[in-house]
Amino acid sequence: MLDETTKGVFTIAATPFLPDGALDFDSIDRLTDAYIEKGANGLTILGMMGEAGKLTAAESVAVVQRVVSRSTVPVVVGVSAPGFAAMSELATKAMEAGAAGVMVAPPMGLKTDAQIVGYFHNAADALGPIPFVLQDFPLATGVQMSPSVVLQIVEECPTCVMLKHEDWPGLEKITTLRGASDSGARRISILCGNGGMYLLEEMMRGADGAMTGFGYPEMMRQVVDAYLAGEVERARDIFDAYMPMIRYEAQPGMGLAIRKHSLAQQGIIAHPTLRKPGAGLSAQAIGEIDALATRQKRRLADLGL
Amino acid sequence: MLDETTKGVFTIAATPFLPDGALDFDSIDRLTDAYIEKGANGLTILGMMGEAGKLTAAESVAVVQRVVSRSTVPVVVGVSAPGFAAMSELATKAMEAGAAGVMVAPPMGLKTDAQIVGYFHNAADALGPIPFVLQDFPLATGVQMSPSVVLQIVEECPTCVMLKHEDWPGLEKITTLRGASDSGARRISILCGNGGMYLLEEMMRGADGAMTGFGYPEMMRQVVDAYLAGEVERARDIFDAYMPMIRYEAQPGMGLAIRKHSLAQQGIIAHPTLRKPGAGLSAQAIGEIDALATRQKRRLADLGL
Amino acid sequence: MLDETTKGVFTIAATPFLPDGALDFDSIDRLTDAYIEKGANGLTILGMMGEAGKLTAAESVAVVQRVVSRSTVPVVVGVSAPGFAAMSELATKAMEAGAAGVMVAPPMGLKTDAQIVGYFHNAADALGPIPFVLQDFPLATGVQMSPSVVLQIVEECPTCVMLKHEDWPGLEKITTLRGASDSGARRISILCGNGGMYLLEEMMRGADGAMTGFGYPEMMRQVVDAYLAGEVERARDIFDAYMPMIRYEAQPGMGLAIRKHSLAQQGIIAHPTLRKPGAGLSAQAIGEIDALATRQKRRLADLGL
Amino acid sequence: MLDETTKGVFTIAATPFLPDGALDFDSIDRLTDAYIEKGANGLTILGMMGEAGKLTAAESVAVVQRVVSRSTVPVVVGVSAPGFAAMSELATKAMEAGAAGVMVAPPMGLKTDAQIVGYFHNAADALGPIPFVLQDFPLATGVQMSPSVVLQIVEECPTCVMLKHEDWPGLEKITTLRGASDSGARRISILCGNGGMYLLEEMMRGADGAMTGFGYPEMMRQVVDAYLAGEVERARDIFDAYMPMIRYEAQPGMGLAIRKHSLAQQGIIAHPTLRKPGAGLSAQAIGEIDALATRQKRRLADLGL
Repeated sequence: MLDETTKGVFTIAATPFLPDGALDFDSIDRLTDAYIEKGANGLTILGMMGEAGKLTAAESVAVVQRVVSRSTVPVVVGVSAPGFAAMSELATKAMEAGAAGVMVAPPMGLKTDAQIVGYFHNAADALGPIPFVLQDFPLATGVQMSPSVVLQIVEECPTCVMLKHEDWPGLEKITTLRGASDSGARRISILCGNGGMYLLEEMMRGADGAMTGFGYPEMMRQVVDAYLAGEVERARDIFDAYMPMIRYEAQPGMGLAIRKHSLAQQGIIAHPTLRKPGAGLSAQAIGEIDALATRQKRRLADLGL
Repeated sequence: MLDETTKGVFTIAATPFLPDGALDFDSIDRLTDAYIEKGANGLTILGMMGEAGKLTAAESVAVVQRVVSRSTVPVVVGVSAPGFAAMSELATKAMEAGAAGVMVAPPMGLKTDAQIVGYFHNAADALGPIPFVLQDFPLATGVQMSPSVVLQIVEECPTCVMLKHEDWPGLEKITTLRGASDSGARRISILCGNGGMYLLEEMMRGADGAMTGFGYPEMMRQVVDAYLAGEVERARDIFDAYMPMIRYEAQPGMGLAIRKHSLAQQGIIAHPTLRKPGAGLSAQAIGEIDALATRQKRRLADLGL
Repeated sequence: MLDETTKGVFTIAATPFLPDGALDFDSIDRLTDAYIEKGANGLTILGMMGEAGKLTAAESVAVVQRVVSRSTVPVVVGVSAPGFAAMSELATKAMEAGAAGVMVAPPMGLKTDAQIVGYFHNAADALGPIPFVLQDFPLATGVQMSPSVVLQIVEECPTCVMLKHEDWPGLEKITTLRGASDSGARRISILCGNGGMYLLEEMMRGADGAMTGFGYPEMMRQVVDAYLAGEVERARDIFDAYMPMIRYEAQPGMGLAIRKHSLAQQGIIAHPTLRKPGAGLSAQAIGEIDALATRQKRRLADLGL
Repeated sequence: MLDETTKGVFTIAATPFLPDGALDFDSIDRLTDAYIEKGANGLTILGMMGEAGKLTAAESVAVVQRVVSRSTVPVVVGVSAPGFAAMSELATKAMEAGAAGVMVAPPMGLKTDAQIVGYFHNAADALGPIPFVLQDFPLATGVQMSPSVVLQIVEECPTCVMLKHEDWPGLEKITTLRGASDSGARRISILCGNGGMYLLEEMMRGADGAMTGFGYPEMMRQVVDAYLAGEVERARDIFDAYMPMIRYEAQPGMGLAIRKHSLAQQGIIAHPTLRKPGAGLSAQAIGEIDALATRQKRRLADLGL
């Protein structure tokens, strides 16, 4: 069960589809295995990158059951929904299937601090005893949470056990939140997103790891492990080797297509298909990615990786 | 089946709940009957006012089946959803249950003309042959559609048969759209929303009726009938008598609570309950509404209504 | 000098232009006189309705000097600007010219409570001892202020002496703010905007008057006076007589053109010209306004007005 | 004079202030010299990074005159303003002082294609014969321009000679625009922003150079020169060496403080002061920047730079 002490790398999982858009359960199995093999301490499914909003309620449950039954590491399930009834229904079924917890992002349109806090009160009520991750991703949701808002939710909602941190800029926020827990606020886990773009600085500010979906998920584990082993310069070397690709993936709305392309090229998923309105990659984009991958491979080899 | 020639008053239906938040099917029946008795030429269910986003997929289907089996007039079903799979699923079940068509609002976050048109292409693909209503409600969705965007959707998506018009300001838009159909563009039905706030001017600009959910739904029919009978001054007298209440209901996010209060007071629904995050009314608000209702009754009596 | 006890009707003034877009100083004089004659207890110039953003810095100062030297009632000057240097410069020149205070709206793009409070701290610093009106108009600015944010600004910025209230819905906000001052918070003046759409209810909730720019500004004074005289039913009769026009003017982005049309028709300003990107009115819109004006005149005559 | 054929690196200039917030003209001179010495083919002043909105009208003119009189390369002046009168006034004074052209960003709040095109028609009218740069920076302005919108402005406004490209993702947009000019549309200059984050890919897609303000502005020239010399791998090596810092500067709202810190540390400007509401850097941020700078220096030395 997810709790405030959870650490490490939770890889955000893509949801593989067949070319006709149907769920590709064989690829789900291979992808689950691959993520774990590449160092995931946990998985997060049905996030934005998992195209959660594009599934029917029944499909969402099917994906959860498949991944949870296959995975040997804890699985967090995104349950963001337009309303609390649907959220509660999916969360309950996920926990019955063996999930470790759920993740909730605020809906677009929330503005004031009071609106945001009120939303998470309602979500916590709807989820009952289920531990949840607070997803803080303003670039995607348009919802901007001050550190004081996060702290108020942490104080008032005891089932909030983790922050998926992807505010941007977000480094001072980590420092502020850690300062608050040093001064007596409940300390929750902070795992960082944004495709790993600031992973090393985030660890130095007090994060507990990463929760994101970079196309070479071993990066997160390599950087976090080197950092935690005290080898900061080596962590920087590894991080820098991946950075041109991290940056390329960071293009909003393109990351998933790039990742599915990489995963398909490695043979992990059968098809890079996205459901509509997701678009594929242009020939030029594929050329750019392949050029970056070639250089990345060379630089990693120089590092013995 | 809904088509381009549909006219009259489609009342947007509330979804009644029991005090514990469960669906109140008895009240659904009474409400369906009452709307029709008060002059509805059609009903629209599972719109924003119907708290559609707060229902589970199964609840949505149950509401559709109940209303459609009870109603003697055509029923339009709101099928807006985060993704096309869920939209298609609900639309298919609604049509199987006997609905006349469906309604689709663009999701928050769409910005450019091309994004909006692209969205409705995808929606039309997902809906197949099902006729749909394009909901144009920028105040709620944040999505602003130029007349040229509406016309492009009408031209490229033949299953788009109606515009639920609630842009604000929106009168020139009706004039522009009607000018375009006079010049050869396909003419679709335009039914107007915004709680009826500009109903008379909308009819004068070329609208075919109303699709909205004012708490005294007989108003829409009385105004539209008087106008169509050529009795414009009488239409204005009736319209003005209701206007203080129309204006009061127009407060964003409060309209539904006010309407459920009015419906409950008239004994049509058993409870004014809203699902979270919907809030009830303060004592002062109820006092204000009751004062308006008293004056409204008196003015309508003066008009022989 | 504006202070926390200011009451009554502050009419928001239009800025008249010649057909070529130059300032029309003769019309400024006539308009100033007319507002006062129709009952204004104060004037507010260079607000959004005053097309403030469309003037150069020098033109803004010229308008302030002209109106202040002409007016026999206190003048509030809108000083909203992209930065604090320009805000401070205009405010200083306005006070030197004899203005009673200034008005500041938050810039688009502020989101969290802390950002909003921080902005007004900086504004108050830039303004020094000049008393200012906090403009709360989310429909135009996109900035949503909780009651607690307003109260924090009132507490921390002693030169904030008035709220120009035009949140929508906003009635509960007045009640909350008045409840807070009843419980010991500093009580500031609340004058209400939104074209007067909820003026009577606002007075009943504890507002001190109106600050808005309806095309028939005598309405505000008539309604406020009748209400303060305890003649609530008469206040409602007057209010209802103007309501169809109030509602028509409420169309966002159209109000100013409608008001300039009305003012020009009454011979108060020479031309209804708006500076770009302001647009004029269609023939149909003018027909609608004239029809409303005719009925309004008749209903007012029935009331002895 | 700026025109459609302009190429190379236009460095976006910071505006130096003294610790009390006054303009620091000595630092302006040194900064102007330094930018040119580090390879700028042109300068862009009074952009967002130049804190343009924080200056009074008179200060803006003073900065323009100082930089233009000092610079040996063409100077573009940002003239974005709340209204066209102020825009026209500053643009006229800038050209009189010897500027090469001006830059215009759309104001927050524009939504539809027609609104955006209409805005630039009005801007072009206000600017008369002055050549202007269209700034396309949705992350900062919230205004999203489709390629078709840019092309329509290019077609209908002949004085639009350059696109400052910083849409994100934006690579396909360059390809689309270049495809259009290959097919007969007027070809304008495209210089790219976003702190140089995608500079190499942008050049490969058809950009003519960079217009941005990275803290080590020599990077832009080094990368562009290597690329244009056909040394793509060397361009990548240089680009990758700067990338960890580019990424760090990319944090929204922090870039300017980081750049002023770097410029002050190099002795180019006397103080890293930002005007309010700009904030300084935390000790931790400075530590992070310094660590990145140390590694960057080492990697550049390995490349003989």
